[in-house]
This record gives sequence, structure tokens and C-alpha cells, in this order.
Amino acid sequence: MTVRRTPHTTGTGTGPPAAFASRHIGPDAADQAKMLAQVGYGSLDELTDAAVPAAIRATEALRLPPALGEPEVLAELRALAARNQVLQPMIGLGYHGTFTPGVILRNVLENPSWYTAYTPYQPEISQGRLEALLNFQTVVADLTGLPTAGASLLDEATAAAEAMTLSRRVGRAGGTVYLADRDCLPQTLAVLRTRAEPLGIEVQTADLSRGLPEDAAARGVFGVLLQYPGARGAVTDPRPAVEQAHALGAVVTVAADLLALTLLTPPGQLGADIAVGSSQRFGVPLGFGGPHAGFMAVRQEYTRSLPGRLVGVSYDADGRPAYRLALQTREQHIRREKATSNICTAQVLLAVMAGMYAVHHGPDGLEAIARRTHRHAAVLAAGLRAGGVQVVHEAFFDTVTARVPGRAAAIAAAAREAGINVRLTDADHIGMSCDETTRPEHLTALWDAFGTAGDPAALDAATPDALPAGLLRQDDYLTHPVFHRHRSETAMLRYLRRLADRDYALDRGMIPLGSCTMKLNATTEMEPVTWPEFGGLHPFAPAGQAEGYLELIGELAERLAEITGYHTVSLQPNAGSQGEFAGLLAVRAYHRAAGRPERTVCLIPSSAHGTNAASAVMAGMKVVVVATGRNGDVDLADLHAKIERHRDELAVLMVTYPSTHGVFEEHIGDVCAAVHDAGGQVYVDGANLNALVGLARPGRFGADVSHLNLHKTFCIPHGGGGPGVGPVAVREHLAPYLPGHPLQSAAGPETGVGPVSAAPWGSAGILPISWAYLRLMGAEGLRRATQVAVLGANYIARRLEPHYPVLYTGPGGLVAHECIIDLRRITKETGITVEDVAKRLIDYGFHAPTMSFPVAGTLMIEPTESEDLAELDRFCAAMIAIRAEIDRVAAGEWPAGDNPLCNAPHTAALLAGDWDHPYSRQEAVFPPGVAPEDKYWPPVRRIDGAYGDRNLVCSCPPPEDFQG
Amino acid sequence: MTVRRTPHTTGTGTGPPAAFASRHIGPDAADQAKMLAQVGYGSLDELTDAAVPAAIRATEALRLPPALGEPEVLAELRALAARNQVLQPMIGLGYHGTFTPGVILRNVLENPSWYTAYTPYQPEISQGRLEALLNFQTVVADLTGLPTAGASLLDEATAAAEAMTLSRRVGRAGGTVYLADRDCLPQTLAVLRTRAEPLGIEVQTADLSRGLPEDAAARGVFGVLLQYPGARGAVTDPRPAVEQAHALGAVVTVAADLLALTLLTPPGQLGADIAVGSSQRFGVPLGFGGPHAGFMAVRQEYTRSLPGRLVGVSYDADGRPAYRLALQTREQHIRREKATSNICTAQVLLAVMAGMYAVHHGPDGLEAIARRTHRHAAVLAAGLRAGGVQVVHEAFFDTVTARVPGRAAAIAAAAREAGINVRLTDADHIGMSCDETTRPEHLTALWDAFGTAGDPAALDAATPDALPAGLLRQDDYLTHPVFHRHRSETAMLRYLRRLADRDYALDRGMIPLGSCTMKLNATTEMEPVTWPEFGGLHPFAPAGQAEGYLELIGELAERLAEITGYHTVSLQPNAGSQGEFAGLLAVRAYHRAAGRPERTVCLIPSSAHGTNAASAVMAGMKVVVVATGRNGDVDLADLHAKIERHRDELAVLMVTYPSTHGVFEEHIGDVCAAVHDAGGQVYVDGANLNALVGLARPGRFGADVSHLNLHKTFCIPHGGGGPGVGPVAVREHLAPYLPGHPLQSAAGPETGVGPVSAAPWGSAGILPISWAYLRLMGAEGLRRATQVAVLGANYIARRLEPHYPVLYTGPGGLVAHECIIDLRRITKETGITVEDVAKRLIDYGFHAPTMSFPVAGTLMIEPTESEDLAELDRFCAAMIAIRAEIDRVAAGEWPAGDNPLCNAPHTAALLAGDWDHPYSRQEAVFPPGVAPEDKYWPPVRRIDGAYGDRNLVCSCPPPEDFQG
Repeated sequence: MTVRRTPHTTGTGTGPPAAFASRHIGPDAADQAKMLAQVGYGSLDELTDAAVPAAIRATEALRLPPALGEPEVLAELRALAARNQVLQPMIGLGYHGTFTPGVILRNVLENPSWYTAYTPYQPEISQGRLEALLNFQTVVADLTGLPTAGASLLDEATAAAEAMTLSRRVGRAGGTVYLADRDCLPQTLAVLRTRAEPLGIEVQTADLSRGLPEDAAARGVFGVLLQYPGARGAVTDPRPAVEQAHALGAVVTVAADLLALTLLTPPGQLGADIAVGSSQRFGVPLGFGGPHAGFMAVRQEYTRSLPGRLVGVSYDADGRPAYRLALQTREQHIRREKATSNICTAQVLLAVMAGMYAVHHGPDGLEAIARRTHRHAAVLAAGLRAGGVQVVHEAFFDTVTARVPGRAAAIAAAAREAGINVRLTDADHIGMSCDETTRPEHLTALWDAFGTAGDPAALDAATPDALPAGLLRQDDYLTHPVFHRHRSETAMLRYLRRLADRDYALDRGMIPLGSCTMKLNATTEMEPVTWPEFGGLHPFAPAGQAEGYLELIGELAERLAEITGYHTVSLQPNAGSQGEFAGLLAVRAYHRAAGRPERTVCLIPSSAHGTNAASAVMAGMKVVVVATGRNGDVDLADLHAKIERHRDELAVLMVTYPSTHGVFEEHIGDVCAAVHDAGGQVYVDGANLNALVGLARPGRFGADVSHLNLHKTFCIPHGGGGPGVGPVAVREHLAPYLPGHPLQSAAGPETGVGPVSAAPWGSAGILPISWAYLRLMGAEGLRRATQVAVLGANYIARRLEPHYPVLYTGPGGLVAHECIIDLRRITKETGITVEDVAKRLIDYGFHAPTMSFPVAGTLMIEPTESEDLAELDRFCAAMIAIRAEIDRVAAGEWPAGDNPLCNAPHTAALLAGDWDHPYSRQEAVFPPGVAPEDKYWPPVRRIDGAYGDRNLVCSCPPPEDFQG
Repeated sequence: MTVRRTPHTTGTGTGPPAAFASRHIGPDAADQAKMLAQVGYGSLDELTDAAVPAAIRATEALRLPPALGEPEVLAELRALAARNQVLQPMIGLGYHGTFTPGVILRNVLENPSWYTAYTPYQPEISQGRLEALLNFQTVVADLTGLPTAGASLLDEATAAAEAMTLSRRVGRAGGTVYLADRDCLPQTLAVLRTRAEPLGIEVQTADLSRGLPEDAAARGVFGVLLQYPGARGAVTDPRPAVEQAHALGAVVTVAADLLALTLLTPPGQLGADIAVGSSQRFGVPLGFGGPHAGFMAVRQEYTRSLPGRLVGVSYDADGRPAYRLALQTREQHIRREKATSNICTAQVLLAVMAGMYAVHHGPDGLEAIARRTHRHAAVLAAGLRAGGVQVVHEAFFDTVTARVPGRAAAIAAAAREAGINVRLTDADHIGMSCDETTRPEHLTALWDAFGTAGDPAALDAATPDALPAGLLRQDDYLTHPVFHRHRSETAMLRYLRRLADRDYALDRGMIPLGSCTMKLNATTEMEPVTWPEFGGLHPFAPAGQAEGYLELIGELAERLAEITGYHTVSLQPNAGSQGEFAGLLAVRAYHRAAGRPERTVCLIPSSAHGTNAASAVMAGMKVVVVATGRNGDVDLADLHAKIERHRDELAVLMVTYPSTHGVFEEHIGDVCAAVHDAGGQVYVDGANLNALVGLARPGRFGADVSHLNLHKTFCIPHGGGGPGVGPVAVREHLAPYLPGHPLQSAAGPETGVGPVSAAPWGSAGILPISWAYLRLMGAEGLRRATQVAVLGANYIARRLEPHYPVLYTGPGGLVAHECIIDLRRITKETGITVEDVAKRLIDYGFHAPTMSFPVAGTLMIEPTESEDLAELDRFCAAMIAIRAEIDRVAAGEWPAGDNPLCNAPHTAALLAGDWDHPYSRQEAVFPPGVAPEDKYWPPVRRIDGAYGDRNLVCSCPPPEDFQG
């Protein structure tokens, strides 16, 4: 018996409860001590003193509000939420009220099996979300009438921008003019302009409702963008414009509304080459602007030019159909400076939701929602007309624009008073968009605001549809069984569970992906996301209704600036790639404002993430690659040579810190100084900020601009491959060039480069996650998290070193927050590849580390601070056991062509059949450390990627294909 | 191409969206048509006209508000929620503020894998929740210092009542007096009195703080109840009372606070024989009174007398440890009229949460919470004393009682004004209970209400603890690794997922349990449960703060009365068994009020659920069994004979309708009339109400009283074996005898029988579920659901009939909502038992139907309306395939001792080992219809129940036991 309690204690505390940091950080004090002993340091501070170059160390603690407990943070968030006013959102402009079916809300958006998953680069353990994405692609392809749809883009505006550049690549017309209908969404036009300018494209607008302007050919139009229905609501026939554009060799993109397409002839049948849009209204909360899944679909011949991710069907080693990401070679991280897009993150979680919304409702359910939406609009217009109000368009789907000369502001105010936000189009026009959530009482309230009245039911009976007869959809869609089988909630629930069970996410075990920082996404951080007060706000709601959001956004931006040592942070970029683009645009604008437009060279180390180069190209820069030295650091001699060679054109050096090799390079200060001396700016990619927070601040050790990945360091979940948030942080001299927004002046500086996202604050709906993380951790908790992340990586490096060489180390022989192990010699000697090891890790119950990035033939391991010692040891034990297996192959005990590594992963189906391998079933599926009762079973064996690329199938295959 | 859309439609609807009923009801119209064809009827109405005797059919539609869509119902619930005011809950009395860790909230209480599970009667597919319950038992045993704890009871008050009857059974003292300390919780005393009276026990109270009254022996005290700490806060040494009681041969129960026990010497070490209490403050929302898990722990020698469920450890067929419910033979449904308790439902979901709260915090975390709680109380008392306020007790844990002659009401009002509810003990006393959520600002607000002030930090430094030195806990507890391994949120999340993955719940597939009605628990119904406005209310908060709750409760009671045809419904009983008890008490009180105390005979058909008989015994009745005829109906001749024989003593006939045989008995009207003619009352057990709603109303076809199971017919999830809600519904003449509550007069009639639950409205926190179900379905939806439930059962009966005899049918050869298939001949001929078939169904991916109830050697199948045709067909195909397997055993193809049935279920571990069975691995684990990629793998093989009963292990076994 231990006597542990003593009487008459005083002063032991009425203070706050135990810190959240101890929940976020996996290893407790005792574990940390064991790990430190292995690494050879006495304390976390000693370790980080040794690992992080003194020159860059921050000397003061971060000035952040003190850490609060989880209940207190939730209480603060509830208080902020209460300061948001959720009005009926009839503003339209691509954002609509929708009801997220509860079964999808709870079992996807609120379920860690979905939201903590990583991008499905390891398809064998991602079959669930890949199927869900294929559903999404099928929805988009079916509804747009175009054969190939991608697995989502960031939003409608950036999808349109991607369509613009795609049009330029694939079109036959020369020229530099991209011609958009004047009734395109205003934020789309603004984003197009931001993206067009650095590429030498001019965006022009015109009324294209009856066709192209006569001088289109003369203008040099290479592509055309139509909005269907238009922003003001009109449904016009795109065919005249399409035909005339095609006659010029120009490519036509139709930005379309998916719900309208259940009733209207789809773009593909009207001749469009590309369709883009947003799937938000398919059950995804408005979230003050995002995240939502944008989409793009293209005609067959453009399939291989489609930007972003594309899920396809291939076969596994047993010849069974299996899903995978197709055409990965198109991705920017592979094509680098030859990339045609910097799209990296998709919006997987939201695309899954939108696809499941279609599965839940089926084609008949969707059509019923569309019909009801349209009927509300038709009745609304009829009531207005009956009251003497002029309705601008005869044909519309969900949006009614009323002409009320001089009275628009007063009417909008009256509607607001009645709890409805409308679009104040201009002083004389009001736009009102109906949606799934519109009810007759909203119509009467609107009529009242216009000073008229009506009986919805009577008007409904008397009013015909307002859809143009010539554009009514005539074909069936969503005929695949998946859109018919899961229509009861019970069936839907089971379908979602079944798919989730096929996948491996953070709720099963470690995902040690170098550079991806798969750390805890705590529930307390996630909870506010689905509160109606955060989920229900329209991005263009008057700022006065978003007080809670604006305070949260302001505080988050301020705190991220404090953490990174920058002056100003913009939260608009809704992916890291967008942050890069915005940062580089700011650099470009800065040089141009200073009269140095010739500074366009972007130096990028060869080890950089490919997105860096792609973003630079999109920002109108010329990429010059700097060599990497043998120790993995930037080759200083080559850097100086390149600076010298491009001294007059040098715009910026773009470098990741700690490096993509997972090392704190000692010379970063010198590198920055050299670039500055040459008149260039320094861009530090914040991908590895998880190794810096609380220890060093890029804005203070020499950088001018960084983007951060809130979905890495700041706990926004990866969602299976998105959403992401990529804020851009700049020093004061670049702040005037951050992105702004035409519809919300508070979103950025007036002098800014224009918007890079459709919504003013990008994916505002998930910013509470990072806000909560900072509030829960405080300065000390954040610093401790960084230290433990570095400790974890070094612990793994030390434990694996005897078995696999650790490729690069920095000061003190230490790595930063991740380590690269080198398999090239093993591969050369045994034929066992990194892929074999990665797939074999599945058998051991792990997600593979990052494969062959930044160095081919290696694995990059990042444990993060959230993995406790037991899990780190489980991983090390698996890696060591795998090394022993490799040795048995090397020793000839197992043939090179038939061993547990090259046959990995092993399925349960395989186990039940005949067995003629030189190793046992037990060795195959229950290697040491794998408990049979808790085994994760991959649903398929290794997938043949090349076959799938050669034979693209990117919508749901018939179910017969899956029969055994 | 199908032309499906036509222009110029008018009047097609601005009405509400598609009905929720189509989500709740599995088979759509086309499926229903196919099923009707199989059963041989043209429509649902035709089928139910044939199945349900015309004599009992309701002629009018239910008068319920029309069905609303899911968004509308959520909006109504949000409006109701907004009318609840959540104040800081310092009322105490066994209910305390607590913070549910987010990871537990989201991944247990909001996760269908946990909440849609059934009671773990099939242990092989319940290992996850059994482990979670074993954690709970270990927490209770460790903290109370008593070796054996059960898997939860309904609440603290009923646990105390169970302790009372247990004391009478096991104690050596004769006598009829149960002596409780006067500082026991008032609701506990009230429930004790309700339960004592019919059993001839007298509950007396006295001040036992210094020992028993001198005349205790003379009074005939057989048991003693102490509250530790007392309701008013005092912590006194129970040992004098314990020792004196033991000297009399009386049994001592200590009602204890689990959090206090982390600091105080546990009851077991103080000599207590039994400990009871509530685990609510271990992370379970207050929910206006429940549901929460009550607990009981006993000394070793009483283990086999423990009421309720007990999880134990045994071994599976491979000799590996496995969990199971131990000592099931003690259960009331087996002991029937010899039962000593009618406990049936437990509070599994809440016990899981409380156990996980301890896993999450560990012993050090719990102690820190307790210390902080105590320090707040100590500082609160010091501040009051400093302000000249008299504090009644020197020694206390969390509750401070202040003496303020004549000022109590005013001070309570001032505190309320400041957002804090205190206990208005009487006109001169205020009680204030601190808890995990107390913060220094609450103390200052309370001081302010008393007209004084203080500095919490300064007082903290100056004030010693107020725990009695002689009662400080000296030993370690929760030393098992499970309370130390999952302390980061990441580890906790994975532990919860791992446990959930071992289990089979409704989110995987059908659970066709006859009599248990495992239907959809829709997300929209579940959502409000975890909103703070429903979760945060203390049960004794002033009614004015609970307007939303009271309106919801009133409407639900009214609508249930309409559905059942009764006059009044009480929602207080928090389990079906409690509803039975309350209903029988009302009958008893009615007869006594009419001067017929001799009417104590309760007639019960032999096929009845055993709980009926147990409840009757508890209500002081004498059970007389009525025979069942060969066709399964009540044997009318025997009924008349029994009525005749007991005519003068006849109190009530208790009968289930449709019968426990799943049949609409034709003579129910005659049966009721005969009982009434003899002066008796008719109790219709509502267990099978799912076959009646919208078609027939017991209160109109002859019954006087029923209880309903909201966790069956009205969609409250089973939670893995609780919570349940068992409202009692009565005709007008019985309404004066429904339960009331001493602390909330609105909860029942003043003339009532006293409370049967600790909380005024029982498990109020989950009543929004049933309210939402009724609001979503409307009268027509409910009727349709019943019809489809009947259709589904008949469809299965028809499909299985060629393979297994269907035991009983009613009018038209039809069953009601469930059917019994008879395996007795199969067992006789082949040795294959119902258990073999049940376990083999696991291999096919199903939960077994109800085994051997109500007839040994049979399976009772209830599909419910929520299962779609695909799932029904999958089940039928499995049953038919199993029959073919049985035939192979019968044919001698497979030996009786080695075949897929007797070896079922098969684990993955088995598959990987050597295989010497006469059937293949494939046949074992992937029989037809089982897709390898979606296979549910049972974590253990068949469990040896008898071994576990002989060798009871009921707390967490050391982890080494599980090593392979």
C-alpha cells in the first residue's frame, strides 16, 4: 500500500483543470524521458538546443493568450458562435442553403474514420473513400453530361480558372483573351483575373446570351466561359455561343449548377467542352464560404489534361477491380516546373459528402428537391409580378431578380429584418435564390418586404414553370445502382460504415507520412464546425451578421502572425498551393510596384515539393533550380552561382525550412541574406512548420513570406485529401499585396492582388479548428508539441538506424521532425522496393511513410508529437521485423518473386484460398505485433496502377465487375 | 432515352420535402410490392386487415400533428432547447456538473457503433462493449473497495432499493425495518419507500452519524443505508454504524460518491457489505435526470446474489480469454416468479461512458478532479465563514451547507440571478455542491449572493482541506494498465475504435431479435440528446428553467396516450421493468383505494416474459400462471378456471399483445372481458407495440394499463443494453396512482404511489428521441411502419417455411411482427442446436435472432420495418444456406462433432493456422453472400459460459492473460 494522500493540504488549487496539451501530445513525461535517453539528451530543451541552430532560435516566448481547458474553449467558441446571426440565405451567387442529411453529417463529417484519413495515395487502404469519390465523379459526369469528372477542385472560381488555363492548353484558337459572360459569378470573374494576369491572359466580359460578339475572332478569344443559370438567374440557351466559339477553335466552359442540371439539358449535350461548378448545395454546410468541393468535367479528349485528382478503376494482384488515383503523373509534385496547375489538395471530405447526398436522395430525390426549389422561385416571381414588381427574367431556375428602381437597399433591409438575406445586386435590383431550405413563409416574408402579398399555394396552382421548354432535360441520370440501393437511413448508415471500414485512418493507428504531419485532430477542435452558427452562414452575408466569425478570423490571423513572426496573415487561400500562389503574387506585385517588373526568377532547390515550382509558374515566374549538396542541404556554391547569374532578374528564393530532407539546415540565415543582398525576397514554405512553432519564427530569421498548412501544423484534419487551408503570412512590406475580395472589403487590402479563392476568407468554416488548437495549447503547449515532434523523429531515427540508414541529419547528427531512411541499397541488393515495404506495412497495421519523396528509393517518416511511445515502438518493431524479412529474401530463403514483401498486402480472401507460398499464412497476415482480433484487413491486394492509367474508367463501374 | 420531364407544370408543390417515413421504413414501394406478392396480399391494408383481428382494430386515424421533415423537426427541437436555461448546477443531491471528454462524446454517445448495439447476450460479437463494461466494473470495485461490481443499475435510488432487498435476502437479522440515515438523498428515501411497501418492509430514518439508535435490535432492523458523503455534505465515519449493524446481523449498504472515493477511504475498507451510487459525474451529461449508470458493488460472498448484469471472463473454444455476461441464470427472465429483482435493462451506454471517463483520466486525473472539486468547496466554505455565514459541517467533500435563518430563499434567488442553481434545503439552509465544472468565479458569485466577498486564490492559500484526517484514502486504485495506456486523445480514440470494431451493431447489419425491435435510431432523433440545452439540466432545477423540456415531455406523454388509447402516461420509469412495476403498483393502489386489498393475484400466461412475473412479485402480488394452448394462444379454458379459482383475489391479468409468440391472438377481447367481469384489471405488456401502433390501441380494446418500451417501438437506441425508457400508460381510473416525485410536484399526481426512479421524469435526456420520431412520422407514417413491420415478419416466415417450420401463426395463417421458427426436430435429428445456428449466423455476418424465448429450441425473428428487402433477402439466404449445411451434417457428410455449425463462429486467427476440418476455410468464413472485403470478423470463438460461471472474474484481468 502506498500512502499517497496527506491531510490538511492548502493552496493546491482552484485553478483550471489539467492542460489539453497532455491530451494532444502522445508521450507523457515518463515516455519522453525514455525517448530522450534513447536519443541521448537529458531534456527536451537540451535536445532542441542541439537540433535547432541557435542563429534562428526565437528568444522570447510567444505572446499568445494562456492555454484554456477544453470546456472553457468550447464555452468561448459558443460565445463566438452566438455572435453569428444565421439568416435564411437567399443571396445565391453559387452558395445555397442545404440540409445535410443527419446520417451523412454524423457518419462522415463528424466521424474520424472519414475526417482523419489521408489522401488515398495508398489505394489498397483507401478503397472506401475512393469509392465515395468515384460516386462524386459519377454524379458530376452524369449531371453535366460530360464523360470525365475529377475528384474535386477547391471551389467554383478556381475550377473556372483551371478551365481557363486548360482551354489555353488544349484549344486550337490562338490568342490571349478569355471571354466570360457578364452574368458569371462576380467572384469567379475576380479570381479569373487574378489568375490570368501573371499568365498574360486577358479576361473580358460580354453579354453572351445570344452568342459571341462579332469581333470575337479579332479579339483573340481562346476560351469562353458561360454561367448556366446565370448569376442573376436567367437560364439562356448556351448553344449559339458554344457553336460560334467552336467555329473559332475556342474551348467552351459552362459553369453550371448541379441541382439545376437535374431539370435542365446538361452542358455536355449543349456542346460544352468543360463544365465547372460547386457541389456545395449537395448537402455541404455553407460555412461562411467553405470548404466545399468544386468540380470539373471534360469531354473525353481532355481527360488526360484534367487538373487535380482523378479516381479510376484498375485491378489488384488477384485480378479483382479496385479503385485508385489515376494519372498521378499529371500531378504538380511530379511535373514540377513543367506543371500546368498547382492543384494539390482536393476537397475530398466535402466531395464525399456531396456524392453521398446524391446516393441518399437518388435521381428522383434530387429532382424532387430541384423541382421544389424551382417551384418556390416560380411562385416567388408570380407573387412579385402580381404585386406590380418587375421580374427581370422570364426563364430561371432558382433565382429571381426583381427590378425596383432606387428601392433595392430598403427592400433588402426589410427582408433582413424578416430574417432573410437577399442579394443587393445594385441600387435598382434585388436577387433572391431559392433552395432546398426555402419554405412558403419565406416567400410571404419577401413579398412583404416588397410591399406586396400573396398566397403561395394559390399561386403555385396558377403559375407555370419558368424553365425554358427547349432546355428541359430529357435523359436519365444516376442510373447506377449505388444511387438506388441506399435510400433508407439504415442502408445508408451501413454503406458509410462499410466504406469507412475498408480504409485506414488516424483512428486505427499511426500515419507516419513525412511532410504531411498527421497529428491529432481533437474532438473539441472539430465540434464547432458542425454547429449551425458556424455552418449556416453565407459567405456574402453582411459583415454585421458575422461578428463571431470575424473576431475568430482576426484572432487566428493575429496569432498565426505571432507564431510565424510575420506582420500580416491572410486566411483566404484554401489550400497550401493557393497560399504559395498568393505569396508569390505578393512578391511579384511588390517588385512591380517598386519598378522592377523584370524580377521574375524564382530559385527553388531541387529537393523542393513540386508544388513550389508549379505555383511559381502560375505566378508568372521563371523557375531556376538550385542543386542540393551531398548532405542534403542546399548547395551553397550553386546557390551563390545561381544568384549571381540571375542577379537582376531574381524575384525570390523559395525554400522549405526545416528542409524537405527533414533537417534544420545550419546556413539558412546566410541563404536568406544572400538572396536579400541580391534584391530578392525569401519565401519559406511552411510545410514543415511543425518543427518550428515556439522555437523559431521564419518572419524573424530572414524570410519575407510563407504559407502555412493549417491542415498540417494546426490540426485541421486531412479529410482523406482535403479540405486544406493555406494561409499566407508576410512581412509588412508585402502586406499591401495580399489577396482581397470584391464582395467583402474586410477580407484583404484594397491594394491587394485580387482574390485567389471564391470566398472572402476561403474555407472559413474550418478555421475554428485551428483557433481552438491555439487556444487549447497556449505558447508553452505549442512549444512543447514541437519539441516532442522533434524528439519522436529522432527517436525513430535512432531506433531504425541499425536496420536502415538514415539519409540526412543536421546539427548534432539530429534530424528535425521527420527522418528519411534510405532503401536504395536494399533495393539494389534484394529487389525489395520502397513500395514493397510500404505495402508490407499494411500487413503490420500501418499506413506507409511518404514514399520516394524528396528522394527516390527512400521513405520519409514523420511521427508527429501526437503518437505515444507505445505506437512509436510498435512502428519501429514493424520496420525492424520487415528488415528481417528482407534479410530472408536476401539470404535466398524466400524467392525474390514470392515473399511476404512483394506479395503484400495480403487479404483475408487470399488466406482462405489455397496457399502455395514459401511462408505461412500466419507470417503473411499476423506478423509479430498484429493481434488477430484487432487486425486491419485491406480489402484488396496490390493494385496495378499502370493498367488503370492505360484503361481509364473514372465513374462507377457496373456492379457485375465486382463479382468474384 | 426516357422523356420524363414536361414543361409548364403548375402546382407541383412548394410543400414540405419528402417524408422521413421513407428513410425510416426500409422497403420502398417496389420492395413492398414484391414482399406482398410473396405473402399473397395485394396491399398493406389487405395484409393487416387479414392479420389483425377486426375486433381490436382502431377505426380512426391517430390524432397526431402532421409529419414534418427532418430540418423542420430539428428547428422545433432547437426552439424547445432554447427554452431550457442551463445554469451552473450546484444543487448536488447525486447529480453534478461534469465535462464529457469530446473523444468519448463523439465516439461513444454519438457513434452508432456503440449506441445501436444490443445487449451482449451473444458475447462473441460483443467483446468491445463487454471489455468497456468490465472497465466500468473495475472502476466501481476499485473505488468502492468491494470486490464484485455489476455492469450497472438504473440509477442510485433503484440501486439502493435493490440493496435493500438484497440485504433482506442475505442478512442474518430477521425483522422488517430498513434503517436509512436521515441524510440520505431524499429521492433515494422516496424510492425506497415505494419499493418497500408492497414487500412489507418499513423504511425508517434516523441520524446514524454516530451509530445506530439503541433500539435498533428491537425495531427489527435487517439492513442499514448510509450516505457517504451525506446529502447535506457531511463526511462522517460510517464505522460505528457498520459495526453495530453487523453485531445485529444486519447488512450495511453505503451509498457513495465515486469521485469522493478517490480521496476517501472506500466503503469496503470501512466494513460495508454493499456500496451503491451513481456514476453520472464520470462524464455523463445531467440530461435533466438521466439516463445515468447506477452501480452496486458487494462483498465476495454476495456475488451470486447481485441483481442486474455482471460481466465476467471465460475462455473461448481456442482457450483464449473472452468476456461474457456471467451468471445469466440469475436473470429475471429465467427465474420468473422466483426472481428476486425485476432488473432487466442496464445502463450500458452510460456505464461505458463512465468507465471510459476513468480510462481517459486515470487514477491521477480522477484524483486531481476530486482535489480541485474539494478545494473549491473548502474555499467556498472559508469565504462564507469569513463573511460571517455559518457553515454547518466541518468535514465535507464537495458540498457546503450554509445556515442562513430565514434567508435561504432570497439567497437561492440571488444565486439563480447570477446563473447558479443551489439547493434550497429548507427555509434556513442552502446547499452548494462543487464539481468538475466549478470555477473560482462561481465562488465569488455565491459569496455575492450571500452578501459577502472573497478572493479565491488567497483563500485557497490559507484554507486547509476539509476532509477528515481519519478517512483519507491510503491505497492505490485503478492500477490496471487500461487506466494508464490511453491517456492521449489519439490513444483513446483508437481504443474506442478498436473496441467498437470487435462488435456487431445495427450499423453493420440486421439484428433480427424477436421482441427487441431493433429498428432504425435515426440521426435526427439522436442529435438533440447531446445539445447542451438538453444535456446540461439538473433534474431538480426549478421548473421555470425547463420550459422546453416540460413542453416536450408533456407532448410526448400526450401523443403516446393517443397512440395507445390511454388517458395518462407517466414517463418516469427508466426501464420497461420499472414501467411494469409502476403499472402493477397502480393496479394495487386502485384495488386498495376501493377497499379490496385482498386482490393480489396476478395471472400471467406461461409464455410471458419473465420480467412480468418478477415485477408482480415486487409489487406484492402472487403470480398464478395460465397455461398456453397448443396453438400458442392463452389456453382459454385454463384462464377461465384460474379466474374462477382466484375470483375474489384477482388483481390483474398481465398479457403481452400481440403475444410473445408473435401472434395476434383472436380472443384478446374475450380475455379482457372475462378478467374485467371478475373484478380484475388487464395489463397489456407493450413489448410488442411495434405491431399495433396505428392499427389498434390497447387502452381501447380492453386493457387498463400498459407499459411501453421507448427503446423498442419508439426508436431510443438500445445502447448495447440500455438506456431504456418504460413509460406506463393507464386508463383514467388508474391515473391517480401513477408515480410522483417528492422534489418535482409536476412529475406525477399527488395521490401517486411515490417515485419509481430517482429522477422526476426518469431518463428525460433521451426523450427527445421518441418525441422526434413521432414528429417525423406523423400518424400515417407510424401506421405504415407497423404495416411494413408485419409485412417483413410474414415475408420471412413465408420464405423460411420450406426450410424451418414456423411455430405459431394467427388469423389467415399470418404472424404479427415476428415469427418463431422451430428447430427442435432438427436438433433431435442432427444434434445441431439453436445456439449452433445463432453462432453460425455470425459467420454469415448477422446477429442471431432471439434464442429459445419464449419457447426453448426455437429462434424468434423480428425484422422490423427498417430493414429493406435486400437485407431481408440476405438474411433468408443465410438461413436457407445454413439449413443446407445442417442437411450435410444430417447426411453424415460432416461429422456431428466437426462441422461449420458446431465450430461457429470462425475467427481470422483460426483461418491462419493449420486446418484439419472436413470443410474448407472458404466455407468456414466466406459462405455464400459474404464478401471478403466487408467481412465482419468475430474476435473470439465460441465462449464457454459454464466455465466463466464457475470461475468468476468480474474485473479487468491482467493483460498477460490475453497473450497468445
